[in-house]
Amino acid sequence: MRTVVWPSLSETQQDAVLERPAITEGANITAAVSQVIAQVREQGDAALVELTQKFDRVTPDSIRVSKSDMDAASERLSENMKQALEQAYANIAKFHKAQKPQPIKVETQPGVLCEQVTRPIQKVGLYIPGGSAPLPSTVLMLGVPAQIAGCQKVVLCSPPPIADEILYVAKLCNIDEVYNVGGGQAIAAMAYGTETVAKVDKIFGPGNAYVTEAKRQVSNDFRGAAIDMPAGPSEVLVIADETADPEFIAADLLSQAEHGPDSQVVLVTPSPVLADQVSDAVRSQLQQLSRADIAEKALASSLIVISESLTQAISISNYYGPEHLIVQTKNPRELLPLLDNAGSIFLGDWSPESAGDYASGTNHVLPTYGYTRTYSSLGLADFSKRMTVQELSAEGLQLLAPTVVTMAEAEGLDAHKRAVTIRVEKLLQRGEA
Amino acid sequence: MRTVVWPSLSETQQDAVLERPAITEGANITAAVSQVIAQVREQGDAALVELTQKFDRVTPDSIRVSKSDMDAASERLSENMKQALEQAYANIAKFHKAQKPQPIKVETQPGVLCEQVTRPIQKVGLYIPGGSAPLPSTVLMLGVPAQIAGCQKVVLCSPPPIADEILYVAKLCNIDEVYNVGGGQAIAAMAYGTETVAKVDKIFGPGNAYVTEAKRQVSNDFRGAAIDMPAGPSEVLVIADETADPEFIAADLLSQAEHGPDSQVVLVTPSPVLADQVSDAVRSQLQQLSRADIAEKALASSLIVISESLTQAISISNYYGPEHLIVQTKNPRELLPLLDNAGSIFLGDWSPESAGDYASGTNHVLPTYGYTRTYSSLGLADFSKRMTVQELSAEGLQLLAPTVVTMAEAEGLDAHKRAVTIRVEKLLQRGEA
Repeated sequence: MRTVVWPSLSETQQDAVLERPAITEGANITAAVSQVIAQVREQGDAALVELTQKFDRVTPDSIRVSKSDMDAASERLSENMKQALEQAYANIAKFHKAQKPQPIKVETQPGVLCEQVTRPIQKVGLYIPGGSAPLPSTVLMLGVPAQIAGCQKVVLCSPPPIADEILYVAKLCNIDEVYNVGGGQAIAAMAYGTETVAKVDKIFGPGNAYVTEAKRQVSNDFRGAAIDMPAGPSEVLVIADETADPEFIAADLLSQAEHGPDSQVVLVTPSPVLADQVSDAVRSQLQQLSRADIAEKALASSLIVISESLTQAISISNYYGPEHLIVQTKNPRELLPLLDNAGSIFLGDWSPESAGDYASGTNHVLPTYGYTRTYSSLGLADFSKRMTVQELSAEGLQLLAPTVVTMAEAEGLDAHKRAVTIRVEKLLQRGEA
Repeated sequence: MRTVVWPSLSETQQDAVLERPAITEGANITAAVSQVIAQVREQGDAALVELTQKFDRVTPDSIRVSKSDMDAASERLSENMKQALEQAYANIAKFHKAQKPQPIKVETQPGVLCEQVTRPIQKVGLYIPGGSAPLPSTVLMLGVPAQIAGCQKVVLCSPPPIADEILYVAKLCNIDEVYNVGGGQAIAAMAYGTETVAKVDKIFGPGNAYVTEAKRQVSNDFRGAAIDMPAGPSEVLVIADETADPEFIAADLLSQAEHGPDSQVVLVTPSPVLADQVSDAVRSQLQQLSRADIAEKALASSLIVISESLTQAISISNYYGPEHLIVQTKNPRELLPLLDNAGSIFLGDWSPESAGDYASGTNHVLPTYGYTRTYSSLGLADFSKRMTVQELSAEGLQLLAPTVVTMAEAEGLDAHKRAVTIRVEKLLQRGEA
């Protein structure tokens, strides 16, 4: 890990040190994905079968996973695994239920009632990546809020063969439409629909560069589907003072680094002693990891920043805007009001990132890559939409009329004005004004 | 207006009738906008001056509007206009203040505390179009929530000369950074910053095809800026029964039609008699409008749908997903729980769209073009972001540890597991476990 002393850097150097690497996707991915999407739109299910054979090198019995396959998956899982998944489900459900919004109803002036109501997004699609290890935790993070929001149709796509853990969590989340489809072809199927796969309104979930590009393309087409948020490499920033345990910090940095070679890992501390201790601990813990090769690549571009003070450490974090922010200081909760631009914050010695990644209750789908400045941690709100409602009484409209008329005149919108005056005139005729 | 009888149409015909026209932006707009953005990024203020001379054919004294110019604008406005703008401001502020979220704090299991906190987006940019008439109402709809959310920096761009009404509302919203810049160059300046114009995190506001394309381009660049929502032509759908006043409905349809030739205007009613009456009323009211030429073009593609029942009318509306939904029936509030996929809903005879466009308190920046299925009416939430927080006690972590360890093993993420076990071991060593 590279160590820099913040106050010794020029502003330009500070910017450069924290700058994220540009993602250069390359025209070949863009073009390949466009072609996959076009093929799915033209050929439907036939394209899904062909592309699954080509990319996943398997031929599933059917595109849709049967009920008996889902039941069989549950039976194969150990009780221990089921209990873990159920405990995680319960915690995530509890936290996301607490996010249910209250309807808002305000009389802004006499006879003018304004409301905000929330409705579930009707049809959502969840994408769960495949690869060397299954990701049942991601099914929980997408499936639980979809279920609590009350989405009518929830579709799940994942490259075959789909792991038993994924099918089990799908069942927990009451998802019965699971498809053996991965990659850009899964995103295209959910965005436009095929004979078998239902078209959805919004697509959620992580994926590789092809999946990310497919999500971008379908979300730029108004006949496609909305998406959850822009994607980027995963990140952690740790703020720590001299009271922190260097072994804990090293373990947290490594648990981010093992995600992938492009993971961003940053420690900011006012303590040079701690910085050295963490650096040593990372080296020694690294050797014990099964994914040491991946973590090592991520560490090559990772950073220890020595700040002047804890206050400066917070400024650096707020400027960088990490996906995960771990605070291991003497009084972490005191710092909370000062923290900004983070996806999820982990306070204190006993709150490792992996608790939130799996089971504490918070969502692990978070803005990254600096999008924390404007995007939110995934939550119930992302599976819903807010509509406003207004109801004016005859008296309310009369009171508001002069304001609307004056503004419509200023904006040169005659018919806007007349929609009000025609009503007020009617009231005058009726003798109600 | 074209009239169709819904039950007489095939499903394909029904789809076709409600299908929105594709927006074909054309490669020339895309390329022209790319060039403008590149020029602003390279030349900064000099590009803004040059492009303003080229497109707006004016040379303002300075890029930034001076305080004295803003004060002078206030002095020139009539008291009547100021009162109208202040009344609208008060109502919009009242409704948006009611949207302030409560922090959420839940103990999901003993010792595992999960929270959701909200922070304002720090820097926002508001775009206000120019053109034949000023749009002070749009300044209110963007400036009031930015102010209430507590955004630290609020920047406003509008093509010069900027109308007094716009400057006055900017002052009401406590916005003192107002720039004489419009079009794609304004979006580029706010997304990337220039010597004078501050870079912002998120850009809000309507605009022409060039502005829309510029917003799309900067939002696809992670070094650019986020945007409020995708844009499309404005729309209204009216659900009415035989008790409705055809003159009111005609006035509402026309107030949408006068927005622009691409406005979408739909009436759905189970009453053929009302359909005829509205059709006649539209024709006769049209002649009295100053913008009759624009409204007439919009009406050419507008639609009256005769449904079998009120229930079917609601289904049609939910399927279409209008930006504005006006309900003029005997008991409009009874229908509210059934209504979905609408930006803003106007209940009853005395709630014309123009009330909400200007002054009732709801926001007039709404999803359109079918984006109502997934996007929300603009509100306080769009000027804020939600972060999650978690804090585990030592005991809480120990209780959660088996779940995290089991899931991390299933996902093959060794370091994730170790971040938990290293802590639990430490507790065991200390004799606290």
